[in-house]
Amino acid sequence: MLVVMKAQATAEEIQAVCDHIEQLGFRAHPLPGAQRTAIGITGNQGEVDRGNLEELSGVAEVIRVSKAYKLASRDVKEEDTIIRFAGTDAAIGGSGLAVIAGPCSIESREQAFSIAEQVAASGAQFLRGGAYKPRTSPYAFQGLGLDALKIMSEIREKFGLRIVTEAIDRESLELVAEWADVIQIGARNMQNFSLLKHAGRLRKPVMIKRGLSATLDEFLMAAEYVMSEGNYEVILCERGVRTFADHTRNTLDLSIIPAVRRLSHLPILVDPSHATGKRDSVLPMARAAVASGADGILVEVHDHPEKALSDGPQSIYPAQFARMMDELEQIAPVVGRTLPRGIHVQAAK
Amino acid sequence: MLVVMKAQATAEEIQAVCDHIEQLGFRAHPLPGAQRTAIGITGNQGEVDRGNLEELSGVAEVIRVSKAYKLASRDVKEEDTIIRFAGTDAAIGGSGLAVIAGPCSIESREQAFSIAEQVAASGAQFLRGGAYKPRTSPYAFQGLGLDALKIMSEIREKFGLRIVTEAIDRESLELVAEWADVIQIGARNMQNFSLLKHAGRLRKPVMIKRGLSATLDEFLMAAEYVMSEGNYEVILCERGVRTFADHTRNTLDLSIIPAVRRLSHLPILVDPSHATGKRDSVLPMARAAVASGADGILVEVHDHPEKALSDGPQSIYPAQFARMMDELEQIAPVVGRTLPRGIHVQAAK
Amino acid sequence: MLVVMKAQATAEEIQAVCDHIEQLGFRAHPLPGAQRTAIGITGNQGEVDRGNLEELSGVAEVIRVSKAYKLASRDVKEEDTIIRFAGTDAAIGGSGLAVIAGPCSIESREQAFSIAEQVAASGAQFLRGGAYKPRTSPYAFQGLGLDALKIMSEIREKFGLRIVTEAIDRESLELVAEWADVIQIGARNMQNFSLLKHAGRLRKPVMIKRGLSATLDEFLMAAEYVMSEGNYEVILCERGVRTFADHTRNTLDLSIIPAVRRLSHLPILVDPSHATGKRDSVLPMARAAVASGADGILVEVHDHPEKALSDGPQSIYPAQFARMMDELEQIAPVVGRTLPRGIHVQAAK
Amino acid sequence: MLVVMKAQATAEEIQAVCDHIEQLGFRAHPLPGAQRTAIGITGNQGEVDRGNLEELSGVAEVIRVSKAYKLASRDVKEEDTIIRFAGTDAAIGGSGLAVIAGPCSIESREQAFSIAEQVAASGAQFLRGGAYKPRTSPYAFQGLGLDALKIMSEIREKFGLRIVTEAIDRESLELVAEWADVIQIGARNMQNFSLLKHAGRLRKPVMIKRGLSATLDEFLMAAEYVMSEGNYEVILCERGVRTFADHTRNTLDLSIIPAVRRLSHLPILVDPSHATGKRDSVLPMARAAVASGADGILVEVHDHPEKALSDGPQSIYPAQFARMMDELEQIAPVVGRTLPRGIHVQAAK
Repeated sequence: MLVVMKAQATAEEIQAVCDHIEQLGFRAHPLPGAQRTAIGITGNQGEVDRGNLEELSGVAEVIRVSKAYKLASRDVKEEDTIIRFAGTDAAIGGSGLAVIAGPCSIESREQAFSIAEQVAASGAQFLRGGAYKPRTSPYAFQGLGLDALKIMSEIREKFGLRIVTEAIDRESLELVAEWADVIQIGARNMQNFSLLKHAGRLRKPVMIKRGLSATLDEFLMAAEYVMSEGNYEVILCERGVRTFADHTRNTLDLSIIPAVRRLSHLPILVDPSHATGKRDSVLPMARAAVASGADGILVEVHDHPEKALSDGPQSIYPAQFARMMDELEQIAPVVGRTLPRGIHVQAAK
Repeated sequence: MLVVMKAQATAEEIQAVCDHIEQLGFRAHPLPGAQRTAIGITGNQGEVDRGNLEELSGVAEVIRVSKAYKLASRDVKEEDTIIRFAGTDAAIGGSGLAVIAGPCSIESREQAFSIAEQVAASGAQFLRGGAYKPRTSPYAFQGLGLDALKIMSEIREKFGLRIVTEAIDRESLELVAEWADVIQIGARNMQNFSLLKHAGRLRKPVMIKRGLSATLDEFLMAAEYVMSEGNYEVILCERGVRTFADHTRNTLDLSIIPAVRRLSHLPILVDPSHATGKRDSVLPMARAAVASGADGILVEVHDHPEKALSDGPQSIYPAQFARMMDELEQIAPVVGRTLPRGIHVQAAK
Repeated sequence: MLVVMKAQATAEEIQAVCDHIEQLGFRAHPLPGAQRTAIGITGNQGEVDRGNLEELSGVAEVIRVSKAYKLASRDVKEEDTIIRFAGTDAAIGGSGLAVIAGPCSIESREQAFSIAEQVAASGAQFLRGGAYKPRTSPYAFQGLGLDALKIMSEIREKFGLRIVTEAIDRESLELVAEWADVIQIGARNMQNFSLLKHAGRLRKPVMIKRGLSATLDEFLMAAEYVMSEGNYEVILCERGVRTFADHTRNTLDLSIIPAVRRLSHLPILVDPSHATGKRDSVLPMARAAVASGADGILVEVHDHPEKALSDGPQSIYPAQFARMMDELEQIAPVVGRTLPRGIHVQAAK
Repeated sequence: MLVVMKAQATAEEIQAVCDHIEQLGFRAHPLPGAQRTAIGITGNQGEVDRGNLEELSGVAEVIRVSKAYKLASRDVKEEDTIIRFAGTDAAIGGSGLAVIAGPCSIESREQAFSIAEQVAASGAQFLRGGAYKPRTSPYAFQGLGLDALKIMSEIREKFGLRIVTEAIDRESLELVAEWADVIQIGARNMQNFSLLKHAGRLRKPVMIKRGLSATLDEFLMAAEYVMSEGNYEVILCERGVRTFADHTRNTLDLSIIPAVRRLSHLPILVDPSHATGKRDSVLPMARAAVASGADGILVEVHDHPEKALSDGPQSIYPAQFARMMDELEQIAPVVGRTLPRGIHVQAAK
């Protein structure tokens, strides 16, 4: 259920409608738009009395939402969601493309700084780097944990890059929320509903990677889990799905980009590195992602991929990353975008 | 790496080998077999000095294991794992088929007792029932939680049935371990490695359902995660995988039964209810599961499926369950099995 | 559209209705049932004038059929289709299980006779053997062609076994129809609509193998292509579909058995050899197929699989086949079936 | 097996090597490259005597090819294959992008001319249009056949557009070869090996669409079937594969573009219309295809898609096609390409 407020509704009227909804035992989610505010109602299976709500002051319309996802839907919020990073000109969503680059895992301070410096020099605004690694084998390298978070925090200080890293359980979630700028939920945890709910209670942007066999509906429902707890800053990320095809590690499904754009206001990125698992497919798929309308890309870069503790064969070299940035910059205008180069951190006053 | 002890090796010799392994900074997993004990070594990537180990007293052989899973492998333990339930004649694995039956969710004391009574009367030894439900939508019924666990505990008291129920995060894991007999890890959590590790630190049998797009290797690696923490009582459960086919909810992959049996000593059950999502396919697939060599089945039974809060269309009626038991009893001898009818609880002394 | 005749309708009345339909420019398919005859109408997109037909003598009812397949549907013919082989007691469909066994390819007269003798001795009624092989590589063994058909014809003379073999194009179709008893259309040709239509103009039973990624609807539509040309003796065969799973060559989808049985009157067999591609999975899957309600199985048997020119690793030995027959005989009664042992050819008068 | 000739080898030396190969009972395929000629040997399983060949005049090297496909492989021919159309500047492969546009089916002279005029005006060089339609249902519109071929032939006369249309069996193959410029083999016939062989005996370019569940190897083997008969002008076309994803009709697998480019010298196009089945996904996926390195696209255009006899919902409007051409023209230089606008037919002398 969705309450659409009149364009001229006051903050008090909006608050009054929210209070009324909460008194009925439901949950109110005010979602301000460019023209008007809409208020999503969750926590019920539809038996809210519509008439009552329509009579409240400032209410334009009450709409029954039929899709399982509400807060993630364009029905509830027509304008694209843009996630901004305080104190910088960086954003995910909107007209600028977001580029998140870095190693699969943070392996050491030296490795991380070296790669960060190079991707920053080519114009990346975000650093990715694994601190907590969900590995198929219990015997594989599991990440440096808190040490990695601290290294990335130093990198933010030095290069301005905003930090994106994965949380794998409640403990790491709290640490990642404390030290990083975007919390990544990995593909294997896309339906770890308990983790999604906890992420929804935080006030940090959450990037959800598509599960290996997730339908579009399930993908948006994962976002809905986070949003239903009050955290509306959700970023989607396509990273390939599992099919019979064996020429790439997964099958990158770029057709989900226009499909998400039609149904949801949330930004969607593409990870060509995990999708293909092959270095020489990363650039072609990064270009294709931008051409298909993605809001940006997430890409693995390593200066010595042959020595990487994880995902070496799919990491591109810094020189390839530089070339990729040039190519994306040329494609961006065809889809009405720009590619910001470098991050500008505003001086603290 | 695997250390095979001589048949006549003493408990002291076994302990000495374990101590030696731990001193090297690795982890020792003694796995007693019918003839001899094998000791799995984990926590290394293979650089253990083989010669050294071969010289220890009581050691017959040191084997390098090439597969990613070690403890779950038949290389490490040749005999089938049989999981027994203290104080009863119930078992999972071995010559008797295990039948786990009950509602998708525990909805009320009355509902649960009514169904439990009927499945017990037809000879089930285990009750399944959801207390914590991983639902695709945050707005769907999420289970009764601890209340459901208490109801099932009362059912165990009254009917003797051993209790199987799902844990979805660390909190529910501890409660399920306390109140139930088998901890179920659901398909969507099959690669929630944090949850698997926590389950590995408990001393309750863990049943892992196959992920929607899990390969056989990934399935066995999920078991390995639990076992690598010292909990060797793991049960696998095939429940259908996601494919293009649209005539059932998932595609039941019975060919994994002989494949698991070849590679692993762990028992494997089949869930025809979640696999097909259709009541009239449950009996045919239950029969097929037993005929293919499964160690038993997990099936949803509801006396009023049209009123069920979840999974109604796939739940069979108690009368169908009774008929299914008769059919399975007839097929069992063809695969060298029996179907125990009812659970026998030994009187406490 | 479907015209249901009254139980007491005469042959003349049925003919009159068919003539009327044909005069309207459509095609009439009289389908006799145990109680009454139904007449399927094809060749139109539904604009037949219903009223007119309902007034004809002997007509009970005119039904608009909404599914894309009509003649293959139980709506049109409620009773199971049973395909009989003149001069023998063999049948496909009905209460007896059909077992079709033999080598992947006919390699020589000696090989074929040796295997035929052994499968006949264990009670098979049908011999399978490839004469025309659809091979992925143009450089692989393509079959002995007409020579193989002649060898199988001799085998029919000697052992009574009815012959099942594949046709891959119009030329081989005519030869197979001339020399064999059942024309097989392979999985890769399931949507070779031109071949299906030609097969529909013949008067020999046609066995269609499910395509590697065919949905149930597409599978039944392939049968409809044959039937729409007037050949109603169609047998379906599940042989595994292509998925991400890598522990078998294809993923055997036994859940299609109850689904087909619900929607269609056509018999359905299972091929566990092509589905799994692994010898040690064939027996478990053959048992599972019968337990799930299949009308029989199609299985590859070879006395020297290590020397087979194609599909050696999935062929079972004659001794395994004998054991399989014993197992299937025990499971058959659970699903209300029998397993006929051996074929009885009636002496020509 | 592959014989690489010296750069300075004469035509006579090449012929002598071919004759020698044929005398041994094999088949020789001379494949001229920019620097040197290579001669593929097929029809054997590798027992050709290497030594003998290496001693022939003009031979540089004899290479054993381990992949199942030989003639389609870059091992045999390093340079990209470019298919040219006599009397025009049109090409498939090479630096110019090929755009093939038109209706799913030729429905009438008026419809075809109207669409052809509009796509020609926007710069298409090729017209696509179905004359023989492989339809899932025997009751659906099957195409106008020869009449459609004649209409397209008139269009070639009038607008210069080269004609691409599908053949579905041997009869239509001969007619298509006679009337059209490129013979299309549809996805459902990708493993109709008999049809592929017949196409290989013709001397017209053959475009093979990827089967719904074809691996890369199978796709290249389909090309090999055509090439092994001596027709080396083969074009590949990605058109989506079948997966669990339900937001598009098929899942477009663009990652096959860099994979094909690595292994094969054959050109590869992308069909975003059949891949997605949704009009609003066609432009994003067309842009992505070019950005990923495809040699061109195949797209359905209809001026009244709501009235189309087949595939209306996925056909774009002529105005969208014009916009798409402008977008592709801008992306082309990023991947080192140009987009030729319009076809230039040389005046007959």
